[in-house]
Amino acid sequence: MKPTHIEHIGIAVKSLEQAIPFYENVLGLKCYSVEEVKEQKVKTAFFKVGQTKIELLESTDPEGPIGKFIEKKGEGLHHMAFAVENLEECLKETENNGVRVIDKTPRDGAEGLKIGFLHPKSTFGVLTEFCEKNK
Amino acid sequence: MKPTHIEHIGIAVKSLEQAIPFYENVLGLKCYSVEEVKEQKVKTAFFKVGQTKIELLESTDPEGPIGKFIEKKGEGLHHMAFAVENLEECLKETENNGVRVIDKTPRDGAEGLKIGFLHPKSTFGVLTEFCEKNK
Repeated sequence: MKPTHIEHIGIAVKSLEQAIPFYENVLGLKCYSVEEVKEQKVKTAFFKVGQTKIELLESTDPEGPIGKFIEKKGEGLHHMAFAVENLEECLKETENNGVRVIDKTPRDGAEGLKIGFLHPKSTFGVLTEFCEKNK
Repeated sequence: MKPTHIEHIGIAVKSLEQAIPFYENVLGLKCYSVEEVKEQKVKTAFFKVGQTKIELLESTDPEGPIGKFIEKKGEGLHHMAFAVENLEECLKETENNGVRVIDKTPRDGAEGLKIGFLHPKSTFGVLTEFCEKNK
């Protein structure tokens, strides 16, 4: 496996409405998309900086993964996603290396990507995602 | 201000010795530098993926910033650094926008960069750094 770049950084926030102006007006980035991902119980806002996207995540349900994360740890950095080629093989290879994977096979993510998560217990506390562009 | 890319992502780990093999053998990245930064009470290990570096941070003192972070939140994502041009102006502009900055003026960071941090209380929980290449 050889990731090509950081595809995105996921950040948990309490309110997109409050956080977006910081990224736009202070950091000078442009929010190019706001999207609700119902099955993940989040609303997302995307910005681009170089090769990497910043994905702000607001929980739509306190029992969802972002709601629970914020309750436990507060707002902040949530996950890191690598762009890879051949995601299916990457997930298998990672599992064969003894790493606990959340997704044994690719599933659909935001922005039409195929994605898979590794478990933070196996990755030194970092919720790690692999992403592949849909072919 | 217009950051050009994510310069690096800082990750707090308990042990470089344990974490480096995950990044090298599982993710396929290469550790190109291990450095002790005494004033920050850390040992760092650097990897490159696309435009971005991954900086693993091991505390050398439980009272240092990474030691305290791990005690409070556990291992995991610690900070996010944007590459900027004209760091001094960026820090002033950010402060003028009402954001609490940790460094009012640039200081020396790892790898010969000029750096400045913003306070996570002002940045929705994300310890945010600006970096500029030394001219």
